[in-house]
Amino acid sequence: MLVGWKPDRESDIPLHYQISRHIRNKITCGDWPVGTKIPSQRWLADEFGVNRSTIVMALDELTADGLLHGNRGGGTVVTGLCDHPGSPPPPDWISYVNSGVQSSNIPTVQEINRAEFRPDVIRLGTGELAPELLPQEAMRTVLQALSSETMPLGYAEPKGSASLRQFISQHVETYGIRAAPSSILIVSGALQALHLISIGLLHRGSTIFLEKPSYLYSIPIFHSAGMKLTGIPMDRHGIQAALIPKYRKQYNGALLYTIPSFHNPTGTVMSRERREQLMQVCHYEGLPLIEDDVYRDLWIDEPSPLPLKAADSSGIVLYLGSLSKTVSPGLRIGWIIGPEPVVDRLADIKMQTDYGASSLSQAVVEKWLSSGLYQQHMENLRQQLRHRRTIAVKALEQFLGDYADWEVPKGGFYIWVRLKRELPLKALFAAALKAGILLNPGHLYEGENNRHIRISYAFASLEDLETGIFRLSVLIKDMSNHFETNKSEE
Amino acid sequence: MLVGWKPDRESDIPLHYQISRHIRNKITCGDWPVGTKIPSQRWLADEFGVNRSTIVMALDELTADGLLHGNRGGGTVVTGLCDHPGSPPPPDWISYVNSGVQSSNIPTVQEINRAEFRPDVIRLGTGELAPELLPQEAMRTVLQALSSETMPLGYAEPKGSASLRQFISQHVETYGIRAAPSSILIVSGALQALHLISIGLLHRGSTIFLEKPSYLYSIPIFHSAGMKLTGIPMDRHGIQAALIPKYRKQYNGALLYTIPSFHNPTGTVMSRERREQLMQVCHYEGLPLIEDDVYRDLWIDEPSPLPLKAADSSGIVLYLGSLSKTVSPGLRIGWIIGPEPVVDRLADIKMQTDYGASSLSQAVVEKWLSSGLYQQHMENLRQQLRHRRTIAVKALEQFLGDYADWEVPKGGFYIWVRLKRELPLKALFAAALKAGILLNPGHLYEGENNRHIRISYAFASLEDLETGIFRLSVLIKDMSNHFETNKSEE
Ligand SMILES: Cc1ncc(COP(=O)(O)O)c(C=O)c1O
Ligand SMILES: Cc1ncc(COP(=O)(O)O)c(C=O)c1O
Repeated sequence: MLVGWKPDRESDIPLHYQISRHIRNKITCGDWPVGTKIPSQRWLADEFGVNRSTIVMALDELTADGLLHGNRGGGTVVTGLCDHPGSPPPPDWISYVNSGVQSSNIPTVQEINRAEFRPDVIRLGTGELAPELLPQEAMRTVLQALSSETMPLGYAEPKGSASLRQFISQHVETYGIRAAPSSILIVSGALQALHLISIGLLHRGSTIFLEKPSYLYSIPIFHSAGMKLTGIPMDRHGIQAALIPKYRKQYNGALLYTIPSFHNPTGTVMSRERREQLMQVCHYEGLPLIEDDVYRDLWIDEPSPLPLKAADSSGIVLYLGSLSKTVSPGLRIGWIIGPEPVVDRLADIKMQTDYGASSLSQAVVEKWLSSGLYQQHMENLRQQLRHRRTIAVKALEQFLGDYADWEVPKGGFYIWVRLKRELPLKALFAAALKAGILLNPGHLYEGENNRHIRISYAFASLEDLETGIFRLSVLIKDMSNHFETNKSEE
Repeated sequence: MLVGWKPDRESDIPLHYQISRHIRNKITCGDWPVGTKIPSQRWLADEFGVNRSTIVMALDELTADGLLHGNRGGGTVVTGLCDHPGSPPPPDWISYVNSGVQSSNIPTVQEINRAEFRPDVIRLGTGELAPELLPQEAMRTVLQALSSETMPLGYAEPKGSASLRQFISQHVETYGIRAAPSSILIVSGALQALHLISIGLLHRGSTIFLEKPSYLYSIPIFHSAGMKLTGIPMDRHGIQAALIPKYRKQYNGALLYTIPSFHNPTGTVMSRERREQLMQVCHYEGLPLIEDDVYRDLWIDEPSPLPLKAADSSGIVLYLGSLSKTVSPGLRIGWIIGPEPVVDRLADIKMQTDYGASSLSQAVVEKWLSSGLYQQHMENLRQQLRHRRTIAVKALEQFLGDYADWEVPKGGFYIWVRLKRELPLKALFAAALKAGILLNPGHLYEGENNRHIRISYAFASLEDLETGIFRLSVLIKDMSNHFETNKSEE
């Protein structure tokens, strides 16, 4: 928020006065309009490197002047300007902020997004490759190679670079998907694919079927576009396809969203038989599918069964891929494969919202796919993930064996740890963050879930993985005992 | 659509049969679901390199089999499968395509988007730098430099790279804008900024004020989000700010969108006095502004007056910048500067829709801004644009002087050519495209405009600029005479 500015300790002007003046400036110049919730006292004290009492003095002064008001929840809000009596009030930005069509991210996700950039935190749940797993060397080689070529610097074609689509077509053919480049749309990551689908193919009030739990519950995309999510239970073979006709009758879903390989958050791989059954049921029901296959290439023990799209003889599947989980999320490159009118429609919407993906990123991805670097990198990455998985499972067994159980995933990033008894996960999340551990609690992926924690072995360092799981186990034990005691006291 | 495939001329199988089989495959595998409009006979003949009569034979066969149906408008539509009697029908994708919340691009824009990738067309209206104006050399230098550094390959911070925001803060300070990095959001181009604003700050039914004509009329972003656009007339000093209170009373606009420097499409630069008046009126009315300043640095004769944002003492302006018009649209990097709660809200929405801009593009832009390359490139670019403007104006005077007039712009890309008499511009657009010239007609930027054509001197080669304007003049003369004759015959 205020990053960068610090009070001057050499100055004769008292610290608290420097701070109140700085904040006053923020308010009068409109950076903090009326209604802004200002950061906590603790945060401000850290940021400015002063005692909390100094912050209190500064804020008291501004409150006395009518610029700030402390509210019940303990927060402090900008309430006035007072500086130019008679001049018209500035625009009420906060009411604008509150009236947009798009929902805010769910609070826990916002908190995670922020905490991820605190250097002191152990990120036990983060769904991305650790910095040391990202292919710096290979990326240098790619940039080096590109620097002697002609770069595509102009606006791109609506569906994205034709040559990249050609390589993606070849790439997906290695696992049985036959797609002409004209059926492929390049997007800025698989998340954007979902956003485009939500505003391009569905009317408000539609229902989306999905696995319960699912990654999709953690992002408000479909909700914002006025759609409902209806979860269908999973077993160890994946979504229970046999239940779909019943759900269809009851909720009239318009689409089914599924993550068949290394499911987020459970790690489940849908079996071959289940895939066949799912395709049959959806075909029979005329229910189109979105197959989110961003983790496919992250197998550790053995490749997943072929994608649903490979068995799609009637154009019922929209297929999503991405390089975010395998090569680099920073590239922001993914793809949608589907029937041409659908791909054309989504391409038109992409043009309307951002005129296409970065052509630099597209050129880089083309090099990755065309040079053999990708295969090489994946082999190495699989080794590393295998090792990380071993370490994580060992730590879990050692520290949490008595309190939780889990299935060892065959690939992907996630272990879906199931607590033997329910705990208030919001409280656990907060306590863990205090103890320097960032968790992805189950309720992100399934409304009322107070029983699961998503552990990722992809992000934290090996040491942090062990330390983090140990510290987490202490918190869980404490909390379990606490509840035990409370119960027996009742 | 079918790009890539060609019939095999060596084969014994007749060409028309190869073609009908190929299309049949497209239909049965779901690439072309029921309802798909297939490409025109002419297009198919060109694409497959056969005579039109061969296409007619192939399509007749498919029509006889019930797979295609010719409709009145002359188009041909996929109507059936027939292959698997008894099997359930595939999903009706066309109804999905038609039910999305987001509108389609307006047809002329879709046609332009497609025609832009035809190599034989002279693009007289295109609002981007010609390939030879894009800084290939400098970009190579940048990539070379980056290839020896550590790249940010992970997911980025919600507001974008902190160091890039620092450089943008310094960059905009050179024209009077004081913005802390915390008030800056990196976006994937200015168009995305508008998309985020449309879904993040406004409720359905809001009214946006804007110049009439305006770029904003050519993109359906606000319309799709359920908002109305209300145009306010311009004069040669820019939007007529004095009219705003009246409009406010009548339409209760929620925001005013303006392009004060080198306005798209008119090329107008808002005068200093008009800027002051506009800021006063908006301040008094409590009406926030979006200042779209993507053309600012493209001055040819002299820099524009300082941006509105530089005189914004109460946080009333959301400021948009971009490198698309100056360095490279393919980078897809722009920025929003505004009050922190607004920027925070838009950052949260950006995270929800695409997890941030390409970090590769961000790293490249940082190098551009931090190395002095940007200033160097701009000086060179201004020379080139000056020369191009001269050539374009000369050709207009020579060929269209009797039929049209215009103001010579002081920078930017566009000459807003005003025909001395109205002509049916949709017909002119079609005739021009037949003659190999792609136009941006006035009605893209202002509903009923049949009087203006946006000519860009930035894109076509010097030779094409002259040829294109000449050919256009022939069409305009023909059409004018035709109308003259028709009139006198009445
Ligand atoms: C299942 C799933 N789909 C999509 C995404 C988004 O990926 P991208 O970075 O390609 O937008 C994620 C990332 O968390 C994911 O887990
Ligand atoms: C006025 C104006 N704003 C925004 C844009 C979009 O720019 P960007 O490529 O940064 O999204 C354009 C491009 O045509 C434009 O003319």
